[in-house]
Amino acid sequence: MSFNSFGRAFRFSTWGESHGPAIGAVVDGCPPGLALSEAGIQPWLDRRRPGTSRFTTQRQEPDRVRILSGTFEGRTTGTPISLMIDNVDARSKDYSEVSKAYRPGHADFAYEAKYGLRDWRGGGRASARETAARVAAGAVARLVIPEVTIRAYVVEIGGDAINRPAFDEAEIDANPFFCPDRAAAARWEALLDGARKSGSSLGAVVECRAEGVPPGWGAPVYAKLDAELAAAAMSVNAVKGVEIGDGFAAARLRGEENADPMRPGDGGRPEFLSNHAGGIAGGISTGQPILLRVAFKPTSSILTPVETVTAGGEAAEIVTTGRHDPCVGIRGAPVVEAMMALVLADQKLLHRAQCG
Amino acid sequence: MSFNSFGRAFRFSTWGESHGPAIGAVVDGCPPGLALSEAGIQPWLDRRRPGTSRFTTQRQEPDRVRILSGTFEGRTTGTPISLMIDNVDARSKDYSEVSKAYRPGHADFAYEAKYGLRDWRGGGRASARETAARVAAGAVARLVIPEVTIRAYVVEIGGDAINRPAFDEAEIDANPFFCPDRAAAARWEALLDGARKSGSSLGAVVECRAEGVPPGWGAPVYAKLDAELAAAAMSVNAVKGVEIGDGFAAARLRGEENADPMRPGDGGRPEFLSNHAGGIAGGISTGQPILLRVAFKPTSSILTPVETVTAGGEAAEIVTTGRHDPCVGIRGAPVVEAMMALVLADQKLLHRAQCG
Amino acid sequence: MSFNSFGRAFRFSTWGESHGPAIGAVVDGCPPGLALSEAGIQPWLDRRRPGTSRFTTQRQEPDRVRILSGTFEGRTTGTPISLMIDNVDARSKDYSEVSKAYRPGHADFAYEAKYGLRDWRGGGRASARETAARVAAGAVARLVIPEVTIRAYVVEIGGDAINRPAFDEAEIDANPFFCPDRAAAARWEALLDGARKSGSSLGAVVECRAEGVPPGWGAPVYAKLDAELAAAAMSVNAVKGVEIGDGFAAARLRGEENADPMRPGDGGRPEFLSNHAGGIAGGISTGQPILLRVAFKPTSSILTPVETVTAGGEAAEIVTTGRHDPCVGIRGAPVVEAMMALVLADQKLLHRAQCG
Amino acid sequence: MSFNSFGRAFRFSTWGESHGPAIGAVVDGCPPGLALSEAGIQPWLDRRRPGTSRFTTQRQEPDRVRILSGTFEGRTTGTPISLMIDNVDARSKDYSEVSKAYRPGHADFAYEAKYGLRDWRGGGRASARETAARVAAGAVARLVIPEVTIRAYVVEIGGDAINRPAFDEAEIDANPFFCPDRAAAARWEALLDGARKSGSSLGAVVECRAEGVPPGWGAPVYAKLDAELAAAAMSVNAVKGVEIGDGFAAARLRGEENADPMRPGDGGRPEFLSNHAGGIAGGISTGQPILLRVAFKPTSSILTPVETVTAGGEAAEIVTTGRHDPCVGIRGAPVVEAMMALVLADQKLLHRAQCG
Repeated sequence: MSFNSFGRAFRFSTWGESHGPAIGAVVDGCPPGLALSEAGIQPWLDRRRPGTSRFTTQRQEPDRVRILSGTFEGRTTGTPISLMIDNVDARSKDYSEVSKAYRPGHADFAYEAKYGLRDWRGGGRASARETAARVAAGAVARLVIPEVTIRAYVVEIGGDAINRPAFDEAEIDANPFFCPDRAAAARWEALLDGARKSGSSLGAVVECRAEGVPPGWGAPVYAKLDAELAAAAMSVNAVKGVEIGDGFAAARLRGEENADPMRPGDGGRPEFLSNHAGGIAGGISTGQPILLRVAFKPTSSILTPVETVTAGGEAAEIVTTGRHDPCVGIRGAPVVEAMMALVLADQKLLHRAQCG
Repeated sequence: MSFNSFGRAFRFSTWGESHGPAIGAVVDGCPPGLALSEAGIQPWLDRRRPGTSRFTTQRQEPDRVRILSGTFEGRTTGTPISLMIDNVDARSKDYSEVSKAYRPGHADFAYEAKYGLRDWRGGGRASARETAARVAAGAVARLVIPEVTIRAYVVEIGGDAINRPAFDEAEIDANPFFCPDRAAAARWEALLDGARKSGSSLGAVVECRAEGVPPGWGAPVYAKLDAELAAAAMSVNAVKGVEIGDGFAAARLRGEENADPMRPGDGGRPEFLSNHAGGIAGGISTGQPILLRVAFKPTSSILTPVETVTAGGEAAEIVTTGRHDPCVGIRGAPVVEAMMALVLADQKLLHRAQCG
Repeated sequence: MSFNSFGRAFRFSTWGESHGPAIGAVVDGCPPGLALSEAGIQPWLDRRRPGTSRFTTQRQEPDRVRILSGTFEGRTTGTPISLMIDNVDARSKDYSEVSKAYRPGHADFAYEAKYGLRDWRGGGRASARETAARVAAGAVARLVIPEVTIRAYVVEIGGDAINRPAFDEAEIDANPFFCPDRAAAARWEALLDGARKSGSSLGAVVECRAEGVPPGWGAPVYAKLDAELAAAAMSVNAVKGVEIGDGFAAARLRGEENADPMRPGDGGRPEFLSNHAGGIAGGISTGQPILLRVAFKPTSSILTPVETVTAGGEAAEIVTTGRHDPCVGIRGAPVVEAMMALVLADQKLLHRAQCG
Repeated sequence: MSFNSFGRAFRFSTWGESHGPAIGAVVDGCPPGLALSEAGIQPWLDRRRPGTSRFTTQRQEPDRVRILSGTFEGRTTGTPISLMIDNVDARSKDYSEVSKAYRPGHADFAYEAKYGLRDWRGGGRASARETAARVAAGAVARLVIPEVTIRAYVVEIGGDAINRPAFDEAEIDANPFFCPDRAAAARWEALLDGARKSGSSLGAVVECRAEGVPPGWGAPVYAKLDAELAAAAMSVNAVKGVEIGDGFAAARLRGEENADPMRPGDGGRPEFLSNHAGGIAGGISTGQPILLRVAFKPTSSILTPVETVTAGGEAAEIVTTGRHDPCVGIRGAPVVEAMMALVLADQKLLHRAQCG
């Protein structure tokens, strides 16, 4: 079944296809009285916007957001906030091949198996274009959690990881890869140019860090903060893996290595000596930074021919023309940031509901 | 906020604490007419049951399930199925230390930060004992998806992985580790004995494979099959990472390596030449086996003293006595299986709702 | 908390204020492959459209709906259907009085008490203009339940009821009141002209009948078909009462009078000798026509001065200028029809989910 | 589909059949730190308990509640509260007739049409015995809203209404009818004795008044406070009608009669001069008392023979032996009170989530 909504208290629904007239999000449950304007949302969309470097798709989308409801005199009213972004530069004819055969790695076959038909223009609803709506909704979510600072960045492309000691937050917005390591960014430029020129694509790992989350957000069993983050991240196009804190590496530690010891800290709150847990224990925030790591597979749209079948069941070869990101994980960084904001805003309100 | 329910069409709620009188699950939305008895649920619980080898906690729990509602003359009626398991062997006095100081790696501090109080007896609601209720609910879920075969097994303990070519499904139930590789099982025996004797603990990686899922289950955007599995897995105690198909390794592949090419197959359904995607594309099943991998951190309850603070804010050292699994990931295997069954049963019903 | 969504399997969310740029609905969970176009939705909106007679508000709204997503080549794709209706004839300056004092009978005070601010232009989100979005969503719902025929009509205005034996379905669309009794319609004309001229308003009772619902839709306890209809109807602006079947009159019958006896009928399905139950027993449809009756209070916007207070807490008198329906219940008929369709479409899919 | 849960923030699920081993409720989302014990729940159950007068069923059920989870040292912990009530006095053999033919007015036929089978023992899940679980859950809900006083009472039986000027709250618990008018209670005694002796049954109208609800609880569009109350009330067995404030009578008022004028009141909050609205405007509480009125049909179980059909499709006559309330509406009063408490607790938490 189609579920295009996310969240429990702070909720949003998105709609729209890659080549339809527009895409949008409806944000519901937002607290009233927050200062919200299109100018406040636009910068977040601009970070995700395509066409800003040669390392993203060349589709030219201004991604201008309009607020159609839910605000009055510049403030949220508590009623649903409808956000709309027009699609401007759709070129459906590039996709005529796609209408006939399934692109491996894409959702073409799965959609058709489910629904019996599919909008093949630019991937339809399965296009990562949908994530613009998440970023717009995420900009609203940020207003709900002013105490939290969220930063996502790319830590690995095509298997080439950053050098952790070289981490420099100021670098993140200084290169087209959201890369916190200047040397890695330089290497990735060559790496991606190579992949792009050979008609291939690369995967990436995005890390997201949220600071300022107080202890106590989350839930014990099925809406655990980490479970919600996992669902949020895995729902992003091309994501295949999610880690909290040390993630899979934690499975290789011994109990005494993995424990995050505590000492009496300032203001009565314990100070943690490490953060293997990524800021979450038993599904609830501990007050340490929340750490989320997300694996993006390489873009499935490639110029290299791949064996496939047609809707009629015949063997075929397919090459995906159209305009695509050579590494979809790069623009995934602002999307992961948005999902982090959306989950945290929701959890803040849920915590307030139960615990006052 | 507390959310102790999971699922959208096939739903279940669990309740109960480690040292309360009982734990249980209420399953709602189950199709009518399915043959269900306590005898049909018990074998699944027995696989998760503690005390069956020296590699699990020595707490002796028969884990006898009772069906209190929702069946009539041995068949489900479509009304809620209440499942109850008595707690028999709780020894709360072992936890008197825990009442005073927070155990690092445990949810003690986070719970208290959230709720202002906590049931410290055996970890209360945060105890992995809750997963027995999931396994019971999962046994009902299996009835809904007879076309699917689910198998979870441990592929790595303490960083020591199985040898993939030695994979033998028949081995899984032939050793106390749900290990499909006989040689690895032998090594793990020594590994775990060592950890146990030194008062330490080890992490593990569990893999789960579901065969027989037809193409078309799942949803495009926010209740994607992979997102639901990620939430389901991450909600299990001690889990810190989730992968679908190649997971993080996919981020190191090039587009043409990661694509799963298709050829015309039997019965008009395409045959895939690989399964990097783990059976899910665009959030929807492709008909290939679903592959889920889950990282369990080492058990946080260890005999090695760790620095901590008391509820009163004073420095302390804590040693977790009580009875614990030296590697909580082992008994995680039947729990991951149950969560897979619960997600798939839900998705089957949801697919039927929308697509008939 | 703001909840602007309705439904469980077939779901819709609405957004928009009376005097914002537009209003809309996002329909989620709709089955794929249904023929849907703007031309198919428009006639339903036209029935609810204002300004078509002197007995409704004189605000001129064309209520042109646009489909922004969820269809491809004229068919639903299973992805969210975004429907948008521009607001054309908003005159916010008529409401300057309203910005200062609370209109009794309106939500002005309650909104401000809840949110601390309110969009006073035309009632903002509390305006019955929101119901246009429901009617648009309802038009989609009708496609899901082609086996069902739904008809709503006004049975009473200002305490003047129709004569049941004179019921003529063909009359319903032949007068501006959706009145199935020609003589009553004639009386209501005078009644409403009187109320309008004296600056007053009248209440109404709307009845809705759904035929063709098979036995078995609904749920036993908390999402009972009648409970869902009650919530759906009570969520419509100005509604204060809901009845199923005989409703309050059933409380005055004896058990043997109220029972709906059964006889063997055609095709193995029992034939009922009466329908006091209104087609629902135990929350589940019986196969008889579903009967819903809904009470609308008189329009709260009146020209008669009423005592009130200002936002500053001072005594005031208020007269509601602006343009309003003298009897909001009339245009309530197509809205109740839409809500019936939306509930039944949802219940059909839910039944299919659980029972195949 | 089966939905046995209610609520959004403060949620509960019920389970159990009339003649199963037990019934129960699981309450989720309850704030932590509230003093809760079995002794605190029992008095509410005792008010609903059968067998306390000759005007209710003679089934002897002690209705002893046990708390199986969610409390620690006498306080709620924020985790799910499992409440269980054993069934003690089930006599399934009384229902052998019912296993063969459908009881008109009951859910027998509808259940079987939906599920293909039914638990006919005492009505199975459709029995009003389920409402004991609601009352237990409602007792927990009351702890969440100590500022609110809720009182339900019977205002009409068999068409014989109370005399409003004779309303005396102290009378409500002084007679077996929850009747606030001593003279009416005396008349009802005769009325009910007559109905009982003739093998018939009577309907009733229950009114419920909640005082102390502050302005601002509720939601604007689809989870309106009145819509939630309507769903809650209509979900109770035998209910066929729901009114808020003046209800259907409001449809007979003119706008100026129905308006609730305001004057400056104490503490800056407006004072209302009337309460036609029943304390709710635009789905949000106004600070006035919440007024809910609920119509119960006469008990469907009667000794008068009624025409029906068998499961095999043959004509039959049925008499419902077994033990039944001659007027199910009487014991409906404590159930309606519980539902009011459950809705208000939920809305209080939801309001806090969004508006702090």
